[in-house]
Amino acid sequence: MSTQKVFFSMGVSLDGFSAGPHASPQNPMGDGGGPKLHKWLFAQEAFRKNGGFGEGGETGKDNEIAKMKLFRAGAGIMGDNMFKEGEIAWPPNVPFHHHIFVLTTKQRDPVEYPGGTTFHFVTDGIESALKQAKEAAGGKDVQIHGGANTIQQYLNAGLVDEFMVDYAPVFLGKGSIALFENINPNIKVKIVETVASQDVTHVTYAVEAQ
Amino acid sequence: MSTQKVFFSMGVSLDGFSAGPHASPQNPMGDGGGPKLHKWLFAQEAFRKNGGFGEGGETGKDNEIAKMKLFRAGAGIMGDNMFKEGEIAWPPNVPFHHHIFVLTTKQRDPVEYPGGTTFHFVTDGIESALKQAKEAAGGKDVQIHGGANTIQQYLNAGLVDEFMVDYAPVFLGKGSIALFENINPNIKVKIVETVASQDVTHVTYAVEAQ
Repeated sequence: MSTQKVFFSMGVSLDGFSAGPHASPQNPMGDGGGPKLHKWLFAQEAFRKNGGFGEGGETGKDNEIAKMKLFRAGAGIMGDNMFKEGEIAWPPNVPFHHHIFVLTTKQRDPVEYPGGTTFHFVTDGIESALKQAKEAAGGKDVQIHGGANTIQQYLNAGLVDEFMVDYAPVFLGKGSIALFENINPNIKVKIVETVASQDVTHVTYAVEAQ
Repeated sequence: MSTQKVFFSMGVSLDGFSAGPHASPQNPMGDGGGPKLHKWLFAQEAFRKNGGFGEGGETGKDNEIAKMKLFRAGAGIMGDNMFKEGEIAWPPNVPFHHHIFVLTTKQRDPVEYPGGTTFHFVTDGIESALKQAKEAAGGKDVQIHGGANTIQQYLNAGLVDEFMVDYAPVFLGKGSIALFENINPNIKVKIVETVASQDVTHVTYAVEAQ
């Protein structure tokens, strides 16, 4: 049996959202959403260094979680919207450093960025993308990077083993994007670990076998 | 300055709901919602004893939180729907043991239950109900018991000082009742304390002055 896990790690507001209202490729985190929801993450040394945002940053337990979020996976999957947002928003050195399989409807050639990130475009569904990501991960875990809709598809298909929610103490309000919309209530999970911090509460959940 | 606080304490699912789908006075916690969302609470000694559900139960840190939920307040406030649900669902010895002010549109005489719970019916709004509850609380704190709509009204009016969310590792799914629907994103909160447990993550938030 493979020990390779499929996971995601997402920030969520008190009202259950992963991005503020009016999110678009030009405004990927939505109005007011990003700075508030990811405030803890932006302060971490690992995040700053990886994104090329400069020296310094926090080096405590939140930084360990940031490292997990950034470096645990050997390959990733993302939705078409997140890729479109990223093409505009990511720094030149795209921060993933692995193969990413983008769920889309239009075939195109792979795109390679500096820093070791290559995007592959998958048009034959979520199971195909996962199979390719597992093969590309070199024995490491596979991360579903997002967005919310892609995560919902993988969760509802029973294809996620584990996930981390970073509960941020903010309300994003009406019109925001719900992280866990229309999840099948038969998906059973249990708490694996909670890490409490000053500005965020990190909880790891395992999905039980279907 | 008064040290009397206004608080609420609610369970929420991973998908942000405080009751399952098809909630009604005959089905107050909604389909599948109650047993899953409040599983940790039902197992506590304080909850079992207070509700007349028999001896035994857990006596650890979750039980301390159950005691806070049950006994911290000197008076309470609830919405009309929750009262209607309770009239059907509560055990004979109604579990509040204090004066409760019910937000409603139809004046009626107070109703007194065994065990020291008296319901008063308030037709002139949430601020009037809060004023009356503060006076009735004998210097103790005031609890907004729910439901979700009542909590939303008090939060958006800037009348809540502190709240506890019990994050349960369950999905309730489509059609459930969102705890924090349409909260004004200008309501600022900070984390006060996190208590991690096996089946639930308790986080206390303070609302910052408006």
